[in-house]
Amino acid sequence: MSDDRDVGPDVGSGTTFDLQDPDYRAAVVDLLAVLAYGEMSAFERMGADAALAPTIDDECHLAAMAAAEWRHFEALRDRLTDLGIDPLVAMEPFRAPLNEFHEHTAPQDWWEGLVKAYVGDGIATDFYREIAQFVDPSTRDLVMQVCDDLGHSQFVVDQVTAAIAADPTLGGRLALWGRRLVGEALSQAQRVAAQRDALSGLLVGGVDRPGADLAEIGRMLARLTDAHTKRMQSLGLGA
Amino acid sequence: MSDDRDVGPDVGSGTTFDLQDPDYRAAVVDLLAVLAYGEMSAFERMGADAALAPTIDDECHLAAMAAAEWRHFEALRDRLTDLGIDPLVAMEPFRAPLNEFHEHTAPQDWWEGLVKAYVGDGIATDFYREIAQFVDPSTRDLVMQVCDDLGHSQFVVDQVTAAIAADPTLGGRLALWGRRLVGEALSQAQRVAAQRDALSGLLVGGVDRPGADLAEIGRMLARLTDAHTKRMQSLGLGA
Repeated sequence: MSDDRDVGPDVGSGTTFDLQDPDYRAAVVDLLAVLAYGEMSAFERMGADAALAPTIDDECHLAAMAAAEWRHFEALRDRLTDLGIDPLVAMEPFRAPLNEFHEHTAPQDWWEGLVKAYVGDGIATDFYREIAQFVDPSTRDLVMQVCDDLGHSQFVVDQVTAAIAADPTLGGRLALWGRRLVGEALSQAQRVAAQRDALSGLLVGGVDRPGADLAEIGRMLARLTDAHTKRMQSLGLGA
Repeated sequence: MSDDRDVGPDVGSGTTFDLQDPDYRAAVVDLLAVLAYGEMSAFERMGADAALAPTIDDECHLAAMAAAEWRHFEALRDRLTDLGIDPLVAMEPFRAPLNEFHEHTAPQDWWEGLVKAYVGDGIATDFYREIAQFVDPSTRDLVMQVCDDLGHSQFVVDQVTAAIAADPTLGGRLALWGRRLVGEALSQAQRVAAQRDALSGLLVGGVDRPGADLAEIGRMLARLTDAHTKRMQSLGLGA
């Protein structure tokens, strides 16, 4: 998905984002922190999934994806530090929901690991890119940078479509797996939204800060669903 | 352990290491490749073990150690490429024995993971540093660099000794665990030595290349054992 798509209101123009405003600052810290912990846990889990690879080429490929997540983690951690925030304290509230997501979606084999790396990361980064429309340009740039597709998607698509062609029963299993990934992601996202008022406040806006109205939130959910469906289709799977 | 200890004959002075010599070249490629695959698999397993951490501080610490292993992997992979070698092909023979080591030593909890990161890596890097005495200075420098203690040992020692103080039964379990790590490491090292003549030839030398005689190999094994015993003692454990 290109970054110039329509992602809702242009809240950047004419809006001043004030990091001295405690609500806005708390929201930005939460956003950077959930992303940072997400990158670190993706790094840990994806590294472990690389060990399931059938060949050494595949293993290197997934391990390199994991290493890239660590570089993203470092960039986010450093930004939190620059804001005068202890990254460990900021990340702590997101540890339980993200770890629960990973424990509920531990891949049983290489293919489940690949689909998770592509479909799971895809939903998450799409969502963060949507949220990034409601923050200051500097924060937005960093979010966009760490959510960038590292060019590994094609690797997953090629591998998974070839595997399904060789073993059609795999397709049914991976389609169910994709649904489970979405279900678990939504479940943990709702938990985070319920607990972190500042973060969810980014979406609905504040006194001096525009947010999304219900219709816009509906369109956002439609965009996320569409993008997920397209990813599943590119793997030859129904969403 | 400091790098200026006595590690056998000074084979560097007066000896020419010729990378055009097929036997020597094969040995250096094997050494770089086993180290590279070792770093990649340590990266994968240590990242997974970080997810077992009791606190977010601890998790970050072990994850950072895993990320450092990836940088070592990259340095070794790049050196193989510079030598005109396909790193994936060179690493392949070491994949099965190293993965078997990790499958037989999958930590059941955070403490086993920490002891493995310290004791297991310690034995391996001591061994590679010994081998490095029998190669050209440029290869030796790289091996020394990737085997360098990254300053994380104190972290493990502090954590494990505090945990054993709080729960003395843990000490007995971790002492057995340390023995199992050594046993599995030796078992896989023997397998590699039996299969890779060029690599084991580094130790015993060649026509124009001095190696270690039996007495020297005996002293080397004694040094490795002593260093292992010291590491176990620093954790408050019998070797």
